[in-house]
Amino acid sequence: MKILIINGPNLNLLGERNPDVYGSLTLEGLETRIAERAEEYNWQAEFFQSNHEGEIIDRLHTARHGYDAVIINPGGYSHTSVAIRDAIEAIPTPVIEVHISNIHAREEFRHRSLISPVCRGSIVGFGAAGYVLALEALLEME
Amino acid sequence: MKILIINGPNLNLLGERNPDVYGSLTLEGLETRIAERAEEYNWQAEFFQSNHEGEIIDRLHTARHGYDAVIINPGGYSHTSVAIRDAIEAIPTPVIEVHISNIHAREEFRHRSLISPVCRGSIVGFGAAGYVLALEALLEME
Amino acid sequence: MKILIINGPNLNLLGERNPDVYGSLTLEGLETRIAERAEEYNWQAEFFQSNHEGEIIDRLHTARHGYDAVIINPGGYSHTSVAIRDAIEAIPTPVIEVHISNIHAREEFRHRSLISPVCRGSIVGFGAAGYVLALEALLEME
Amino acid sequence: MKILIINGPNLNLLGERNPDVYGSLTLEGLETRIAERAEEYNWQAEFFQSNHEGEIIDRLHTARHGYDAVIINPGGYSHTSVAIRDAIEAIPTPVIEVHISNIHAREEFRHRSLISPVCRGSIVGFGAAGYVLALEALLEME
Amino acid sequence: MKILIINGPNLNLLGERNPDVYGSLTLEGLETRIAERAEEYNWQAEFFQSNHEGEIIDRLHTARHGYDAVIINPGGYSHTSVAIRDAIEAIPTPVIEVHISNIHAREEFRHRSLISPVCRGSIVGFGAAGYVLALEALLEME
Amino acid sequence: MKILIINGPNLNLLGERNPDVYGSLTLEGLETRIAERAEEYNWQAEFFQSNHEGEIIDRLHTARHGYDAVIINPGGYSHTSVAIRDAIEAIPTPVIEVHISNIHAREEFRHRSLISPVCRGSIVGFGAAGYVLALEALLEME
Amino acid sequence: MKILIINGPNLNLLGERNPDVYGSLTLEGLETRIAERAEEYNWQAEFFQSNHEGEIIDRLHTARHGYDAVIINPGGYSHTSVAIRDAIEAIPTPVIEVHISNIHAREEFRHRSLISPVCRGSIVGFGAAGYVLALEALLEME
Amino acid sequence: MKILIINGPNLNLLGERNPDVYGSLTLEGLETRIAERAEEYNWQAEFFQSNHEGEIIDRLHTARHGYDAVIINPGGYSHTSVAIRDAIEAIPTPVIEVHISNIHAREEFRHRSLISPVCRGSIVGFGAAGYVLALEALLEME
Amino acid sequence: MKILIINGPNLNLLGERNPDVYGSLTLEGLETRIAERAEEYNWQAEFFQSNHEGEIIDRLHTARHGYDAVIINPGGYSHTSVAIRDAIEAIPTPVIEVHISNIHAREEFRHRSLISPVCRGSIVGFGAAGYVLALEALLEME
Amino acid sequence: MKILIINGPNLNLLGERNPDVYGSLTLEGLETRIAERAEEYNWQAEFFQSNHEGEIIDRLHTARHGYDAVIINPGGYSHTSVAIRDAIEAIPTPVIEVHISNIHAREEFRHRSLISPVCRGSIVGFGAAGYVLALEALLEME
Amino acid sequence: MKILIINGPNLNLLGERNPDVYGSLTLEGLETRIAERAEEYNWQAEFFQSNHEGEIIDRLHTARHGYDAVIINPGGYSHTSVAIRDAIEAIPTPVIEVHISNIHAREEFRHRSLISPVCRGSIVGFGAAGYVLALEALLEME
Amino acid sequence: MKILIINGPNLNLLGERNPDVYGSLTLEGLETRIAERAEEYNWQAEFFQSNHEGEIIDRLHTARHGYDAVIINPGGYSHTSVAIRDAIEAIPTPVIEVHISNIHAREEFRHRSLISPVCRGSIVGFGAAGYVLALEALLEME
Repeated sequence: MKILIINGPNLNLLGERNPDVYGSLTLEGLETRIAERAEEYNWQAEFFQSNHEGEIIDRLHTARHGYDAVIINPGGYSHTSVAIRDAIEAIPTPVIEVHISNIHAREEFRHRSLISPVCRGSIVGFGAAGYVLALEALLEME
Repeated sequence: MKILIINGPNLNLLGERNPDVYGSLTLEGLETRIAERAEEYNWQAEFFQSNHEGEIIDRLHTARHGYDAVIINPGGYSHTSVAIRDAIEAIPTPVIEVHISNIHAREEFRHRSLISPVCRGSIVGFGAAGYVLALEALLEME
Repeated sequence: MKILIINGPNLNLLGERNPDVYGSLTLEGLETRIAERAEEYNWQAEFFQSNHEGEIIDRLHTARHGYDAVIINPGGYSHTSVAIRDAIEAIPTPVIEVHISNIHAREEFRHRSLISPVCRGSIVGFGAAGYVLALEALLEME
Repeated sequence: MKILIINGPNLNLLGERNPDVYGSLTLEGLETRIAERAEEYNWQAEFFQSNHEGEIIDRLHTARHGYDAVIINPGGYSHTSVAIRDAIEAIPTPVIEVHISNIHAREEFRHRSLISPVCRGSIVGFGAAGYVLALEALLEME
Repeated sequence: MKILIINGPNLNLLGERNPDVYGSLTLEGLETRIAERAEEYNWQAEFFQSNHEGEIIDRLHTARHGYDAVIINPGGYSHTSVAIRDAIEAIPTPVIEVHISNIHAREEFRHRSLISPVCRGSIVGFGAAGYVLALEALLEME
Repeated sequence: MKILIINGPNLNLLGERNPDVYGSLTLEGLETRIAERAEEYNWQAEFFQSNHEGEIIDRLHTARHGYDAVIINPGGYSHTSVAIRDAIEAIPTPVIEVHISNIHAREEFRHRSLISPVCRGSIVGFGAAGYVLALEALLEME
Repeated sequence: MKILIINGPNLNLLGERNPDVYGSLTLEGLETRIAERAEEYNWQAEFFQSNHEGEIIDRLHTARHGYDAVIINPGGYSHTSVAIRDAIEAIPTPVIEVHISNIHAREEFRHRSLISPVCRGSIVGFGAAGYVLALEALLEME
Repeated sequence: MKILIINGPNLNLLGERNPDVYGSLTLEGLETRIAERAEEYNWQAEFFQSNHEGEIIDRLHTARHGYDAVIINPGGYSHTSVAIRDAIEAIPTPVIEVHISNIHAREEFRHRSLISPVCRGSIVGFGAAGYVLALEALLEME
Repeated sequence: MKILIINGPNLNLLGERNPDVYGSLTLEGLETRIAERAEEYNWQAEFFQSNHEGEIIDRLHTARHGYDAVIINPGGYSHTSVAIRDAIEAIPTPVIEVHISNIHAREEFRHRSLISPVCRGSIVGFGAAGYVLALEALLEME
Repeated sequence: MKILIINGPNLNLLGERNPDVYGSLTLEGLETRIAERAEEYNWQAEFFQSNHEGEIIDRLHTARHGYDAVIINPGGYSHTSVAIRDAIEAIPTPVIEVHISNIHAREEFRHRSLISPVCRGSIVGFGAAGYVLALEALLEME
Repeated sequence: MKILIINGPNLNLLGERNPDVYGSLTLEGLETRIAERAEEYNWQAEFFQSNHEGEIIDRLHTARHGYDAVIINPGGYSHTSVAIRDAIEAIPTPVIEVHISNIHAREEFRHRSLISPVCRGSIVGFGAAGYVLALEALLEME
Repeated sequence: MKILIINGPNLNLLGERNPDVYGSLTLEGLETRIAERAEEYNWQAEFFQSNHEGEIIDRLHTARHGYDAVIINPGGYSHTSVAIRDAIEAIPTPVIEVHISNIHAREEFRHRSLISPVCRGSIVGFGAAGYVLALEALLEME
């Protein structure tokens, strides 16, 4: 199984940005943790981070062939990007949405994710563990 | 670790009600699956299902002592019950919210959960697997 | 044909509560009138009244086997209960909604019924006669 | 007893238009069914169909003398016509509203009827049977 | 000076409809009162009443030549008719809006008139006197 | 007959402020015009202008004895002052609302007047002539 | 191919009404231009203009047999008529919506067309050319 | 004088739940304090606490005979329960609403109480003292 | 203890204005009643009434030294005055809000008080007794 | 005449993505079809597709010199991009908006295009033919 | 150059009120700082503070002759005063709006300033420095 | 002191785009003006312009080390970009928002800036001078 993990805008600052909300693990640390778990299941994890809406769409498109699943944390684009939503809807690969913080406990404009309705499921508020849970979700759903 | 799993209104009809949306597993089957996984970790799982908002509140109150976590699927009360929200906020035990279906892909009034903001995290749309993922979440967060 | 007639919160006070709006017939009187009409058609009418949302849900669930139809006046729960809506949607038995008063001519928050969209039809504003009309509706629809 | 049955816009296409929603009975067939039931009670039924808001208002005005009741299906004008609402409010004859389909289960803009608050009652979602139920309502309310 | 006075839907029932709100003067009486005042100024008053949105538009169009002013009470169409609004905007003749009752003190949906923004001015709540005031307005504005 | 004419905030700048919208007549000129018309009817007109919400309320209170009517142009307070609305409702003297410009053809926030519902009637958009029409309204309504 | 071109309210004033927005071509000139283009393709164009919502509905109904397409400019009814929308939905003939001006660049209430969702497509803002483009659309879609 | 004091959901946790907001007094302590004050006036105080919407309605119904007043803190049901509102409106006994915390200074969804409009009055934000003030209110209003 | 009682706009008309809603006690009578109760506790009560938003703010500012509490009925300014709200928030003296009528049972725009969130508590709907209850509240809270 | 055709996000997947909605023609096929039609008129068509909002803005800017027109399908950015709207408004070249599917018949958030008000016109719902119609529109408008 | 600096409600408490938000500089200190900077440019600064909406309007009116600019901090009136907005629009003198705190980062009702649209520009969130920046703005704009 | 000045989408067209709104200074001219002022204070100004949301985020991230302040004009992204907002919130460097035009006097959708709440302050409507004022703001705030 080959899985693409996409992290959206500002997630490159993980560990440095607002540690109260996002935790102290860096993006690199996060990706290592995910990769290790994937390896346990003999899965291949590929990582991609971008602050560009367009690059995220491009990368999602490449995942429509040769990948078994996508795990995405669309960051701030969750609440504003119809284009990413359309990209997810346009590809046959199943997509799981992850949010590190509990977006429902934050500002009003973060309560609605345009992305959620087109994902297989959402995992919200479990910190870095959310990505690992997304891997487990793939396992459980098989 | 002792965990309480609360299922809200209409979840007693699981397996029988709208299988396209909720799957064909019965509540009994679901509870067995959860219990087995809990046992693997040497955890104790207790189950409670009720269609009564008041009973769910009563049960949440009992969980404020002697339980390490609560996993709740508040069903239709997710969108209307300030009282259950207050009960979750009133107890020190961490609570995880699970929804079997992807509530964000359904009717408008199901998009907002009054419960989410006071839970540790939410797992939405993974079917019966969502409960097992909630167990994993407890494991990962330790 | 076996029919269940469910009356929701405060309908036990019928005849006593606000007679200008709800009429002077008591719940007992209402049930007698319905029962008599049902007998004319050799139908069996069972009655249930509760002020508890959960009990109404429980009773709706029991009606999923062995009943040909449910007639429900959800009272104040019409405007707030996603859980009762889900219960109606979850059972195969056809359900007809009745309101004694013309809810559309009252306070704004009574104009929307969460229950209507999942019922076969609604009969609103005809006083006690509405229940009898619901019986006729079953007859006409056969 | 003399009763006027008014059918609003597009109801002349009954039986032909979207049979899934409106049934296969034609307007003529519907009127025959209503007339026969009326005759059973020795009532006189008059029929009027128009796609013109103004003609419906004119006809409602004529019904303020010499008619005992009006049964109206205002079709699409239900949701937009303050003028028809005012006409109903302006005449002393009691008016009953009928909708063939369950308007509450359709598009958002069909959920509100401007007509309902000024009618004696509403019968929604019972197909052609709704008109017959309106006759019964007159009988029951006597 | 030649003036057209247009009365919209249900105003033919003036004097008969809801006298508390609209007064006891009939439409004929109202027109006589207006005509007499017009004559005092040697003006010619023409009257038109219709319950049909389309006829009101047609009549407004005829008033674009040979008339010095239009006085219109659009009745219930005030709140719903973009088409009448467009007709008023489309003709060069100045139009004055009159409402017999104080629409701002009635139901919420009567508070907004689509017609007001394209009229020279509005006179609201003075009963039948409002039409005479509209004549005076023409006099004062000269 | 003794009449109080109240002009609200910024109307002291009449003739100087935005002449396209409000005309070139000064407040003094306006008051002279009103006084002359009042004299024709042997009525006594008193004038009051203030930019202070509180002073307008105080003056309205004094008008509850010894005055037959109040004509008020509440200016910008029309859209924001519950206190002036309450003052008008609190006194038995009839009050007529006048606006020089057509407030319905201007910014959205000017479309609603909190004052209109508690006035006898409103005259909007006729420039300075509106005040004279208000006098006529008093004459016509006698 | 036989095509019906329906023009709604106030379009009879084309060329005369607000030429900045609607251009200087008259309705007659417009219809000639359309007819000529239709002839080039050996299509038969029939024209209908009415200010009456009801007549437009009646005419749409006649187009359900013997016509290959309808081109409609519903004018002001676009924003208010559920009844015309229902008529379009009720007939099997494909309907194309045309607006002369760019309704999205005008008042807020013109931004939503109730008609668009039930049409094959919409052509907005190209002046008189929009109707010709609708003919081309029929050609292209064949 | 016989008075019923009803405490709604989660108030059984008083003293334990969020002491910053609700204070450190337990429900038992609160009831003692109220009872003592009542005794000073030779009034009889009865207490009822429930987390069940239905039980609160049932208890309100019993209070329609033999009680002089009800003091209710509806907790989270204040914002969601039409059914409790209807129960209060249905009984002749006067009802006073009490909230321990200042609900207007908390989350948006707590700002509106469905219960307030049908109560004699509301006392909000005075902590446990609010109940005693409700007793005083009964005294003052006599 | 020294207490300032501020009454806002139109409360000078107490006893005269709308006695059904506000009772027949005059402001003078009300102040006497409050003063007498204060004296019982050896408290000093000072009174201030103004229809001017600015004067109320000025007076609130003077109360930030040498006063132990303020009791305010902001009248119509409750719903519109951010400036009074800011004044209350700016002074350290605790402020209690009183409303004579049940504002939640009146017009929609009276349901929200901008003042409530910055007051210690609110007492609504108990008529003149509300002010005395505010005194008691101070006593109880000590 | 030199024309730029811009296709926004996800349109590179044309023919592959959701063929029910978008048809089976690929982007390459679409561009060929447009180019051929352009050639018939001796026009030069240039094509640009990007999933990046910024690149679309950059490309629009280059089109402000040396191009006679732009045809744009902004895809998902239609509903969210003020920046693209500003780019269109900032250049003198006329821009025509095309949507392949009928956006008004899809999700609520697709009903409003931020782009439409600044375009010359919009062509919506005609599939790939829409682009060709945009070419015709340029021809017709000359 | 002669400049009027107007400070609105509660700004007389500067330095004393909520120093976290508004800083510790008093109004007197603030005015001294502004005056000193003005003197550097040989400009004359006049100061005015009032808690009265009407007085602020009066003062704005006096500034329409003999002043080159007005700098205003309308405090709480920013969000509620159409009358002050109209006063600014009514005078030819340019007006600059200053807010000490970042109103966009505070309560929802502070996000909209009715004053901003009629000012030359706004300077928000720079504390006392904002007034000095307004002076610089006048310098830069010359 | 080292300062980064970021200009968002379409600002590369400054001087060419809509000079009535944005002035005739080019971006190059603007940057020169800013640089000269910065030099006066011996500050170092770096400039960055991009039409790409992602590039702006990337550049903001680089500014979290080695820069003392950022001045940003987010252009159209002000109203739509949660991602840029998050980037500003994620870096410790203080950020000042500048808008050339008075966004509050333009279209409704420009009134809200998602960026303002996370900036130190905002300077709106002073044309090119706004950037220089932002420099002054840094000076004043030291």
